[in-house]
Amino acid sequence: MKGSLLYEGKAKKVYHVNDHPDQLILSYKNDATAFNGKKKDQFEGKGRLNNLITSKVFQYLKQNGISSHFIEELNDTEQLVAKTDIVPLEVVVRNVAAGSITRRLGIKEKEIFTPPLLELFYKDDDLDDPLINDAHAYHLTGISEEDLDSIKQMALQVNEQLIELFKQVELQLVDFKLEFGRLQDGTIVLADEISPDTCRLWDITTGEKMDKDVFRENIGDLISVYETILQRLEEHTCAK
Amino acid sequence: MKGSLLYEGKAKKVYHVNDHPDQLILSYKNDATAFNGKKKDQFEGKGRLNNLITSKVFQYLKQNGISSHFIEELNDTEQLVAKTDIVPLEVVVRNVAAGSITRRLGIKEKEIFTPPLLELFYKDDDLDDPLINDAHAYHLTGISEEDLDSIKQMALQVNEQLIELFKQVELQLVDFKLEFGRLQDGTIVLADEISPDTCRLWDITTGEKMDKDVFRENIGDLISVYETILQRLEEHTCAK
Ligand SMILES: Nc1ncnc2c1ncn2[C@@H]1O[C@H](COP(=O)(O)OP(=O)(O)O)[C@@H](O)[C@H]1O
Ligand SMILES: Nc1ncnc2c1ncn2[C@@H]1O[C@H](COP(=O)(O)OP(=O)(O)O)[C@@H](O)[C@H]1O
Ligand SMILES: [Mg+2]
Ligand SMILES: [Mg+2]
Repeated sequence: MKGSLLYEGKAKKVYHVNDHPDQLILSYKNDATAFNGKKKDQFEGKGRLNNLITSKVFQYLKQNGISSHFIEELNDTEQLVAKTDIVPLEVVVRNVAAGSITRRLGIKEKEIFTPPLLELFYKDDDLDDPLINDAHAYHLTGISEEDLDSIKQMALQVNEQLIELFKQVELQLVDFKLEFGRLQDGTIVLADEISPDTCRLWDITTGEKMDKDVFRENIGDLISVYETILQRLEEHTCAK
Repeated sequence: MKGSLLYEGKAKKVYHVNDHPDQLILSYKNDATAFNGKKKDQFEGKGRLNNLITSKVFQYLKQNGISSHFIEELNDTEQLVAKTDIVPLEVVVRNVAAGSITRRLGIKEKEIFTPPLLELFYKDDDLDDPLINDAHAYHLTGISEEDLDSIKQMALQVNEQLIELFKQVELQLVDFKLEFGRLQDGTIVLADEISPDTCRLWDITTGEKMDKDVFRENIGDLISVYETILQRLEEHTCAK
């Protein structure tokens, strides 16, 4: 079933699917990278955790009406998805100030964004994924105003759904990054991953960082933190 | 008439006006700075040239229906303006790619922007005037959507007027930076300066750079270039 390797990224390998040119297999790696690849490490078990967490999150979103590339979990480290043409934008939604925005704009960590703040970054490793505005996005990607509006609206819907999901497992959703892709018929759907690598999650009670910041800032054991996220999500699913 | 010094910036000193709390005197300095103050020099006569060029440009814009802070030229280096509360945004309009955007987004120099591309930067020297999007502008400056829209519309109108003015003096308007301020009644007007320090101008025939890039890139005599701009604008005014 698994075909040839299409692309190897920083976090996942992407494979063709034999006889299904409209599908891909995402194979999650154990690599961790931060600061656009300048900091690197490997964590045994990380690929499995991000694959299982992402699958749970996409299943939840699908149940809540968000159309995505996700088809099914195949095994511990792999999932089947619809093949898309990825729109080269990283769409970031922030509920609380943390990370790069505090340094970039002098906003205090923990400041609340009401409404949630949406940012676009141009997905280009050579340029270090620069922040852009809507006009840049039109110029650089050729996306239409209508499609960009619908991406933004979907991102804010995902935010509302995820705030709710994570609250139910005692986590505060601080911010996260999404990618969107175009199916063959042109429809834009949510793609890529949603995991502690791509979200900032703080324990609701203790305020502890429960995401890739543990790796970025060397402040704990990444695997046990990601394991906790998965466990909480699994208990939540069973309880329903 | 000239009162106490209110503020000294990189390019101008700002004075109160006795008995006119709603006015200011802008006194143009001979200093040149680039790369947010990291490169510095002094050029005898520069203050005069930028004061006279800015005055000509603001007079032209006023004739063409753009409301601004400009009241009158007082002498070689000083002009009288309406006091405003400056909105801490640098509004950049680009007709052609040049300078920072080519490095930041990998866009080729001389690529044409149709429509003209508008960028907002947060005016904060400590943060190096970072690029921001509209949502950041709302959050950081508290500006309303209506006021930001009107600033953008004014900036694009100024662009159309300036393209025309500079074309008449054999210059291509590549890009420029504007600042806007609020009068006491809340009305937003164009403020600050419009000079070869704040515009990129290329000779229409030779393509030569006729602006602060001469200083940034050490490729010529700043004063004689600025002198040429003023002369062309003066001849144009007389010819009318
Ligand atoms: N449904 C999809 N169709 C096509 N490409 C996808 C899909 N989902 C994710 N991708 C892409 O898979 C690639 C591999 O992921 P990742 O390792 O995270 O890459 P990167 O190093 O670019 O972040 C990324 O370019 C991502 O955009
Ligand atoms: N009409 C105005 N009312 C109040 N301030 C103004 C007005 N026009 C320009 N300014 C401000 O005058 C200051 C001095 O100008 P400048 O030397 O260019 O400063 P900077 O170093 O901040 O670029 C700037 O902060 C500018 O925003
Ligand atoms: Mg990725
Ligand atoms: Mg200035």
